[in-house]
Amino acid sequence: MSKKKRILSGMRPTGPLHLGNLQGALANWVTMQDDYECFFFIADWHALTTDYENTDSVSDYVKNVMLDWLSAGLSPEKSTLFVQSHIKEHAELFLLLSMITPVPWLERNPTYKDQIVQLNNKDLSTFGFLGYPVLQAADIIMYKADGVPVGMDQIPHVELTREIARRFNHFYGKVFPEPDAILTKTSKILGLDRRKMSKSYNNAIFLSDTVEDIAAKVSQMITDPQRARKSDPGNPDVCNVFDFHNLYSSPETVAEINEQCRAAQIGCVECKKIMGQHLISALEPVREKRKYYEDNPKLVADIIVTGGSKARSVAQQTMEEVRSAMKI
Amino acid sequence: MSKKKRILSGMRPTGPLHLGNLQGALANWVTMQDDYECFFFIADWHALTTDYENTDSVSDYVKNVMLDWLSAGLSPEKSTLFVQSHIKEHAELFLLLSMITPVPWLERNPTYKDQIVQLNNKDLSTFGFLGYPVLQAADIIMYKADGVPVGMDQIPHVELTREIARRFNHFYGKVFPEPDAILTKTSKILGLDRRKMSKSYNNAIFLSDTVEDIAAKVSQMITDPQRARKSDPGNPDVCNVFDFHNLYSSPETVAEINEQCRAAQIGCVECKKIMGQHLISALEPVREKRKYYEDNPKLVADIIVTGGSKARSVAQQTMEEVRSAMKI
Repeated sequence: MSKKKRILSGMRPTGPLHLGNLQGALANWVTMQDDYECFFFIADWHALTTDYENTDSVSDYVKNVMLDWLSAGLSPEKSTLFVQSHIKEHAELFLLLSMITPVPWLERNPTYKDQIVQLNNKDLSTFGFLGYPVLQAADIIMYKADGVPVGMDQIPHVELTREIARRFNHFYGKVFPEPDAILTKTSKILGLDRRKMSKSYNNAIFLSDTVEDIAAKVSQMITDPQRARKSDPGNPDVCNVFDFHNLYSSPETVAEINEQCRAAQIGCVECKKIMGQHLISALEPVREKRKYYEDNPKLVADIIVTGGSKARSVAQQTMEEVRSAMKI
Repeated sequence: MSKKKRILSGMRPTGPLHLGNLQGALANWVTMQDDYECFFFIADWHALTTDYENTDSVSDYVKNVMLDWLSAGLSPEKSTLFVQSHIKEHAELFLLLSMITPVPWLERNPTYKDQIVQLNNKDLSTFGFLGYPVLQAADIIMYKADGVPVGMDQIPHVELTREIARRFNHFYGKVFPEPDAILTKTSKILGLDRRKMSKSYNNAIFLSDTVEDIAAKVSQMITDPQRARKSDPGNPDVCNVFDFHNLYSSPETVAEINEQCRAAQIGCVECKKIMGQHLISALEPVREKRKYYEDNPKLVADIIVTGGSKARSVAQQTMEEVRSAMKI
């Protein structure tokens, strides 16, 4: 039996996780736990790259993301779950990698340019924001990850990490493998209003939502915009609710809804109710696990400490190799 | 009795220290030990900002700088002497300060622009080189230094440190005092060839030079360039050897040489011999202390460990305040 490959990924603690996070990343991570040795971390230092002016919520968000992860099925038995800022070695490696990373590599990073335009209400001209791919590289190569599960938009970052690892190995001798981007299947899921699901758009269904929250939110969802009356035939191909059916309802229900909608045999209100019930069922295990962990805060605290210790011992080992290679 | 003010300064370990370092900084530090609570550190991480491609000598240089310091009269009883990379908290504070430091503040740093031009044989377009004032700010405010002894050219860096400290306090509440630049008296001393004394110009007299080294180097010194023959009157005002007399010979000798040179009563060879003897005497205590510490490497190692522990306990205390202020 060959050794499992090691993967690493992280999330910034910027709020409660929603279905977009679940379908875009978390659901994949849960599956990957059986095939890979997994390191998942909450990137609280990364949260500062864009939210440095007000950090009041970061520590609450950290606890919440861990609850969301555990509720969604990340398992402390299978994976190493930890908080970035608990592993000071990330800062040391960030500092050392910063010495060998050319500024032009960072300036040409497409996300850098995009975000400066998109988040134009924030001053992102900080040294830390320019350097966040260096911190990301440190996060990844610290654990000598073989792969990083990412969406398409993150591929340039993994490429930059590979280049930084290569440059380190070139100067100081081979310490780091170059991690591969593992492109994960993501499911299309939009917010209630058909825009990208996002906490800041106020259009998200959160993993921590109650049954009542979910029912209420589903009832507000925008369906096929061309369908004005129940007697008009609908088009599931352009209906956001139908996309949700595809994800959360049974294949039989999906087939039925598809037929009935096109034949104007079912109205949007009823269709949403059915989808809501399936969604609520699908998230039942998530809510159950969350309740269990919420009722056992000591257990969650222990999981964070234990994950931190496991991560730290790998990080310390890596840093010894780094210091020895750099002769510093 | 009022509490002593705290100062902090550092040197990059880029080679053996010479008279330029002694007269430009070290001699002042030795004096300041009695009036201030002093933290002096060997900035090995900073050495990577310009010398990242080949780090083979850094750890030897670190040991040597410590020997030079002790030989010159820095005292582990009076001052906290430590090595930057032994205090990982500097990396963590560097990372956190990087999040709030605007890139334009770094780009307008005059030393940044100067060095890129001056060291044009090195690729200094690295993220770490751009950010070295951020690391320097972390070094300084970590110990809540009231002052930083500097030469004129370093004043913009202290100003940048003050700005970064102010910005931190503005966002997260007052944690850091703004350190003052303490402009120290420095003595004019040039290299053997009348250029700036520098290891790389091969024109330096090192603190670790033997008596024979010093005599040989002094004999090569360039004097008043207008004085071709011994029978020509010389001009001490433009003579580098006379500057050395001013620093290392007795006032009587200085007065005598001044007269005799102008009257062509003494030749350069003899004048240099006299100066050499005074210089050798002046450095006798330095060589004695160096011999003592060289013969006791365990003692030097202990000094480095003890200084590190003292520095670390201050740094850990500061970082607790920082994390609590930033709520991270």
